[in-house]
Amino acid sequence: MSTTTREWHLAARPHGEPTPEDFRLVEVPVPEPGEGQVVVRMVAMSVDPYMRGRMRSGPSYAPPWEVGAVMSGGAVGRVVASRAPDLPEGTLVLTDAAWREIAVLDAGAVRRLPSPTDVPPSWFLGVLGMPGLTAYAGLFRVAAFTPGDDVLVSGAAGAVGSLAGQFARLRGAGSVVGSAGSPEKVAWLTGELGFTTAFDYHSGVAEGVAAAAPDGVDVFFDNVGGAHLEAAIGALRVHGRAALCGSISGYNAVEPPPGPRNMSLMVGKRLTLRGFLVGDHTDLRAEFTDTVSGWLRSGDLVVRETEYQGIENAVPAFLDLMRGVNTGKMVVRLTSDPD
Amino acid sequence: MSTTTREWHLAARPHGEPTPEDFRLVEVPVPEPGEGQVVVRMVAMSVDPYMRGRMRSGPSYAPPWEVGAVMSGGAVGRVVASRAPDLPEGTLVLTDAAWREIAVLDAGAVRRLPSPTDVPPSWFLGVLGMPGLTAYAGLFRVAAFTPGDDVLVSGAAGAVGSLAGQFARLRGAGSVVGSAGSPEKVAWLTGELGFTTAFDYHSGVAEGVAAAAPDGVDVFFDNVGGAHLEAAIGALRVHGRAALCGSISGYNAVEPPPGPRNMSLMVGKRLTLRGFLVGDHTDLRAEFTDTVSGWLRSGDLVVRETEYQGIENAVPAFLDLMRGVNTGKMVVRLTSDPD
Repeated sequence: MSTTTREWHLAARPHGEPTPEDFRLVEVPVPEPGEGQVVVRMVAMSVDPYMRGRMRSGPSYAPPWEVGAVMSGGAVGRVVASRAPDLPEGTLVLTDAAWREIAVLDAGAVRRLPSPTDVPPSWFLGVLGMPGLTAYAGLFRVAAFTPGDDVLVSGAAGAVGSLAGQFARLRGAGSVVGSAGSPEKVAWLTGELGFTTAFDYHSGVAEGVAAAAPDGVDVFFDNVGGAHLEAAIGALRVHGRAALCGSISGYNAVEPPPGPRNMSLMVGKRLTLRGFLVGDHTDLRAEFTDTVSGWLRSGDLVVRETEYQGIENAVPAFLDLMRGVNTGKMVVRLTSDPD
Repeated sequence: MSTTTREWHLAARPHGEPTPEDFRLVEVPVPEPGEGQVVVRMVAMSVDPYMRGRMRSGPSYAPPWEVGAVMSGGAVGRVVASRAPDLPEGTLVLTDAAWREIAVLDAGAVRRLPSPTDVPPSWFLGVLGMPGLTAYAGLFRVAAFTPGDDVLVSGAAGAVGSLAGQFARLRGAGSVVGSAGSPEKVAWLTGELGFTTAFDYHSGVAEGVAAAAPDGVDVFFDNVGGAHLEAAIGALRVHGRAALCGSISGYNAVEPPPGPRNMSLMVGKRLTLRGFLVGDHTDLRAEFTDTVSGWLRSGDLVVRETEYQGIENAVPAFLDLMRGVNTGKMVVRLTSDPD
């Protein structure tokens, strides 16, 4: 076993778009595990848009990363040494301890995953993990989707959006419209993923929505905010509902971004806009896991990852995620794993 | 009986703030009632902010008034001649046929009111009518108020706002904060109406909210929109809810008004913003009438009207309403009535 590991520290709080200089890769010794602890070698770690918020100081729903300290985030890892009887060597676990290759963790800080899994371990960071439950809870509970609804998804080629759109299709949406950031993503949405139609928002968000959904939509699943939210408020029909999952368009903003100028439409159309966090909806996890596992087994649900290799590429992966380089879930592979 | 009546016609669609020149008072003959019709002499008519929308062409939730034709709106009137057996002379009725002194109406176009009433007939245009049900449905259903909630009301000295705030108090709000447009209104809210605190928004909306509710609120009842909505999104706590009833600050806008710049807060705070129209909630009418009648009988609920006199003052009343001159419900008294 290595006696050192590499880990990413936050070097500075960015003003605007983060840069590589805001992070520092540090080599540190791996301590000996104490009683009740395990040594976990990370197989894959997650980079997610919400992490941009953790780079800020001040109160937020996830605690801020501290400058000069290791960052944290979701990862799947393998127990390589154990002083916890319930977590023998070889156990596959989910942790929030990544941005490092090896971590020594209390048994209570990890969640045991099925092993051997019938899916790649990294899928517990995506379709079977937090992004999957986010899409599921947002669409079915927060937006109160019902079969026949016409659905608009922003950030539709991302980890959450690509699932939300497919979940809508699989549950009988009237139509599913996706907004994405490149012609290749648009082609993927309308091809392999089975979206009804899709558009590249670089050609205009309002124009894209108007062309793709000229008769409006019933549900909006928003990962982007800003102009997408304004266009969606315009497109939502009477009694339309929006689940507000994120607003990546504004995460690097230095000044408050303009708000939707058409909020007054909410009264006449009796619209509901509802922000949500997946952490409020963990009671859906069993139902979600059953349902999505079934769709995976039947082949109805398409999963794609954009995978970067090696801890040294975790920050490039995060920076590229914030620029929309990924298609599907962005993950960083840290070690090969026999599963 | 008069053989002529006066009625207001829409003369032009305003651009921006309506002016007296957009309306015309016309004297017309009163036709003879046909079989199944009644002649109704209006006792009091309503002017309401939503009517600004009816001055526009194009689709909206209430049909637009036509240029050159009589306008319509809520009124309480007395049957003065009848060819409808169920509506004998003397019956007090609610109609949508005002902006006129006398109307000949099909029996199906009026709703019978209790007569003699134990409340002034004009209250069926306010506390016991559409504005009352709006406040009731908005607070208790749309915003899902629960006892203990801290509540913020914009337009709190208006017909709907003054009721929404009192309903919250009567159902056990933790605190009720009101925003209004003059020191006199503020004094009325914190005095007779029992609001916990209130502020004059002319001194700054964001500042007023921050000073009046430094620890935030759980529910926002919005009649104003614009800066009030932005400030409320900032002030709402985790799982906060807003009932969007109207946005009078933008009704005369020629250009789209700026939207709230802090929509991204909706995710982390899991806020719900919900627009509504009273017409979707008429199933609450019996419960509403029972509850509010009880509060009126016990003297717990304070009702104030701003009353203008005579059909010739209906347009001045409407224009003053749009400028916030009224305290409580704005009504136009058209005839004295023995009740």
